[in-house]
Amino acid sequence: MRASRFFISTLKEAPSDAEIVSHKLMMRAGMIKRIGSGIYTYMPMGLRVIRKVEAIIREEMNNAHAIELLMPLVQPAELWQETGRWDKMGAELMRVKDRHGREFAIQPTSEEVVTDVVRTEIKSYRQLPINFYHIQTKFRDERRPRFGLMRGREFTMKDAYSFDRDIDGLKKSYQIMFDAYVKIFNRFGLQFRAVAADNGAIGGSGSHEFHVIADTGEDALVYCPNSDYAANMEAAEALPLSSVRAAPTQALAKTATPGKAKCEDVAALLNLPLAQTVKSIVLTVEKEDKGVTSKQVWLLLLRGDHELNEVKAAKIPGIAGYRFASEAEIVEWFGTPPGYLGPINTKKPVNVVVDRTVANMHDFVCGANEVDFHFTGVNWGRDLPEAQVFDIRNVVEGDPSPDGKGTLAIQRGIEVGHVFQLGTAYSESMKATYLDENGKPQLIQMGCYGIGVTRILGAAIEQNFDDKGIIWPTALAPFEVVLCPMGYDRSEAVKAETDKLYAALQAAGVDVILDDRGERPGAMFADWELIGVPHRIVVGDRGLKEGKLEYQGRRDAAATPVALEEMPGFIQAKLAN
Amino acid sequence: MRASRFFISTLKEAPSDAEIVSHKLMMRAGMIKRIGSGIYTYMPMGLRVIRKVEAIIREEMNNAHAIELLMPLVQPAELWQETGRWDKMGAELMRVKDRHGREFAIQPTSEEVVTDVVRTEIKSYRQLPINFYHIQTKFRDERRPRFGLMRGREFTMKDAYSFDRDIDGLKKSYQIMFDAYVKIFNRFGLQFRAVAADNGAIGGSGSHEFHVIADTGEDALVYCPNSDYAANMEAAEALPLSSVRAAPTQALAKTATPGKAKCEDVAALLNLPLAQTVKSIVLTVEKEDKGVTSKQVWLLLLRGDHELNEVKAAKIPGIAGYRFASEAEIVEWFGTPPGYLGPINTKKPVNVVVDRTVANMHDFVCGANEVDFHFTGVNWGRDLPEAQVFDIRNVVEGDPSPDGKGTLAIQRGIEVGHVFQLGTAYSESMKATYLDENGKPQLIQMGCYGIGVTRILGAAIEQNFDDKGIIWPTALAPFEVVLCPMGYDRSEAVKAETDKLYAALQAAGVDVILDDRGERPGAMFADWELIGVPHRIVVGDRGLKEGKLEYQGRRDAAATPVALEEMPGFIQAKLAN
Repeated sequence: MRASRFFISTLKEAPSDAEIVSHKLMMRAGMIKRIGSGIYTYMPMGLRVIRKVEAIIREEMNNAHAIELLMPLVQPAELWQETGRWDKMGAELMRVKDRHGREFAIQPTSEEVVTDVVRTEIKSYRQLPINFYHIQTKFRDERRPRFGLMRGREFTMKDAYSFDRDIDGLKKSYQIMFDAYVKIFNRFGLQFRAVAADNGAIGGSGSHEFHVIADTGEDALVYCPNSDYAANMEAAEALPLSSVRAAPTQALAKTATPGKAKCEDVAALLNLPLAQTVKSIVLTVEKEDKGVTSKQVWLLLLRGDHELNEVKAAKIPGIAGYRFASEAEIVEWFGTPPGYLGPINTKKPVNVVVDRTVANMHDFVCGANEVDFHFTGVNWGRDLPEAQVFDIRNVVEGDPSPDGKGTLAIQRGIEVGHVFQLGTAYSESMKATYLDENGKPQLIQMGCYGIGVTRILGAAIEQNFDDKGIIWPTALAPFEVVLCPMGYDRSEAVKAETDKLYAALQAAGVDVILDDRGERPGAMFADWELIGVPHRIVVGDRGLKEGKLEYQGRRDAAATPVALEEMPGFIQAKLAN
Repeated sequence: MRASRFFISTLKEAPSDAEIVSHKLMMRAGMIKRIGSGIYTYMPMGLRVIRKVEAIIREEMNNAHAIELLMPLVQPAELWQETGRWDKMGAELMRVKDRHGREFAIQPTSEEVVTDVVRTEIKSYRQLPINFYHIQTKFRDERRPRFGLMRGREFTMKDAYSFDRDIDGLKKSYQIMFDAYVKIFNRFGLQFRAVAADNGAIGGSGSHEFHVIADTGEDALVYCPNSDYAANMEAAEALPLSSVRAAPTQALAKTATPGKAKCEDVAALLNLPLAQTVKSIVLTVEKEDKGVTSKQVWLLLLRGDHELNEVKAAKIPGIAGYRFASEAEIVEWFGTPPGYLGPINTKKPVNVVVDRTVANMHDFVCGANEVDFHFTGVNWGRDLPEAQVFDIRNVVEGDPSPDGKGTLAIQRGIEVGHVFQLGTAYSESMKATYLDENGKPQLIQMGCYGIGVTRILGAAIEQNFDDKGIIWPTALAPFEVVLCPMGYDRSEAVKAETDKLYAALQAAGVDVILDDRGERPGAMFADWELIGVPHRIVVGDRGLKEGKLEYQGRRDAAATPVALEEMPGFIQAKLAN
């Protein structure tokens, strides 16, 4: 490609609505152009990256024997009503009416349509397993679109759907997709981690997320450096402490803690470690039975330095559908506003659940259900009854790994892929069955597998940038190599050698761009560093006199002279790495 | 590709809603699957054809230095309001509201978005000309979707947009696109014709349609077999007759024609050629001026065997916005219901316009504005005043070619592409300007260029089918070659030779499918004839004994034996043609 025939548009400054580095750099590098909130035109430079992402995904999906089709964007409401998602999905599902008033969804995913295809096309066990995928535009009407391609409304996703006879088959199909994802992310040249994810009703190890590692990632990934244990924060188990709870050493005492409503402040005031305090979280569960609404209030106790894991909390028996209690409810049940709550002397009875860590504490501090007062020296069994114990906290760095192979570490990640064992959730509601060997209809076991194609761009940049711009891994770069001639229009030697090298690289299948725009060297280099092309070759009269060109990798601090005739081989060796 | 790893689903009968052959065959061959009215899933077999169409278009667009980007599907209403198309497009434009009540269009084309991109990105004449294109899903909420991919609601289109400094530049860009289209349709391997189209306000030769020739086509294409004249019916000019009008030979007479309201019936009754009759078409034009609506009635006269060309009629000065008159209006102005209308003795004054052919007639027959009566022997100047003359009819086979090089022929076609000189229509309303050499802002000249990607499939089939199924041109076929082993699972020799040939063809870059499904020969052959793969190789024990395979082209009446070792070369020679 010649730059003069391509469209290059770089900016010195990112627009003010770009909050994160990948969004800023993609705007500055002219990769995307905002058309509306969360809606972008993929400009020529950005589209090249998207196509490379898509090509790698497509190849590996095909290698894994998934079969590509293309499902429509505008999907009849009737299908979505069959599964109940028409109601469940709420405002995120973009809905549209046609000229006859019929309703449609603009697809955020395609479970309904693919299940409809399969229930009419698949008749016999002989046709299973099968896996269909497409790479298609999606729309989610996010409440607050932001971060460029990271949380857009219109985006491109690869979604695959496997169909199997039974759970064993589903597990095999799932593993094939998992392995394909590992290959895909390795080919992208990105550091990534597959983590076990919570998969709600289905249970088991039926869900993994694929994250690109980045300090700026929204998600916390938990892993064990000594083993292959990895889970997202929601799913990572905090093991029960192995030590036995120590016996009480202090008497229960009500202590004045005026104005100290937070564990940190109480600990500082009392000169105690934060880990000796206990914090109270109050949840409300409302249940309707035969038109009568009853209300339960739950008190969850966590160590002062720990955080509630809401997904774990949701699994406490009887607590499904909880919400955080209102201040009025807290006053009604505890007799005091938030800040001084605790399990002792509540005004009305509450269900107490304690985190595993809290169950092991002694001589701890908690609120006294009285403004400006806490209890110290609190001990289970003596000062209050033992309570139900569950794992309800987020793990922290240094916690023991659930597989017993060391301690946990935490890093940040950006979710870009998800594999999920759906089981029969969709096939049941949509009556997708096959006939088994005995001619009996059986429900099809489904899995679904997504990769956020356009999100990959954002994640790759969050992982790979410096103060000059983007640093694309070669596999995703809009161009692998940029040829920068110094005076292409002025020096015949420069033009001749540049053209020769350009032709040689093209003949070798290298994705090279020749910058023939006539920009000054400084502006030209700045553009390509911003755009993030991984390999740069400079052709100049000075070097040519000695038969040399200059090579510089995007991460290199300085250029390397390379002999003219060696350059094609040199580049091919670089690309082969 | 091995058939066992692909998805093949053929039907003996097409569903009853499939009216035309391409729709029937695509359904039977498992290429598409209906999800809703005018909305299809492109099944794996169909998607392969779509991808081949897209690849050819993309290559030729890139060769023509058009630059690919990807504009969003969901586009803000504001942009569409700027050009007025938000109101103009009516129910065909699919509209959607987001969670905040903001309005969007699901794109039917992308003039607004691309003009928005260009008005912010293009600053100087130095950046022009430029041409952006994308291949993207489109949606048009057709009143009556039908014919499968021919008139769907969701479809794929390639749309390109050129931007130039001036009309000369626009004409050059237009020609480049025209030439690229010729290459594209040639590469498809389809018989096609580019015809001049009416381009409304812009005038000149600024619009051409590309049609795939097919007897079943909806459009009539007019061309001169002796020259390169070609136009669609709307745009094809019917020249004035070169002969001088003959002098009257008959007296005007009112003749009883009881119950004969049609020219054909009157001619039969009077034993006259149909070409001696004149038919009356009544149009109404309503105009509003300062709140007062005035109504004009126009009488258009055509020869009895000719048809009105509504596009030509719309160009008569003063007639813009016409509609066909109601029966009540006809009675009010002519004193008689339709069937016996004519230009003589109207009840109220009407504007009379005659077609060029009618202006040249003498002794003709027309209605007498009295039920059951016609005038015969009518002559211009003598029996009624000369009227305004315009070309307002459709040409017919045998009319003189407007370029003077012979007579016109007519064939049927399916419109699959359109190139159009837009001029400044969009740049004016959206204020898309560039700075010229003097630093003065100038409006950008635009062109737009579309190809109906998914429609190509329907058109290709309408042109190429037989009673067995589809006959794809090789460039568009889902697979170029199908390998049909007879007893792949039973005969070691068949399996070994099939696998060897499969590997050899794959290594040669041939897009081959090996049918390893274990179907019986009859069913297997019927499938591939229905699907329309152009080249078939049969591997069987009987042939192998003599070192032979059987080759049969999809249009061949019988198979040809080819020596085992010669087959790869034989196939490559076939594909090279």
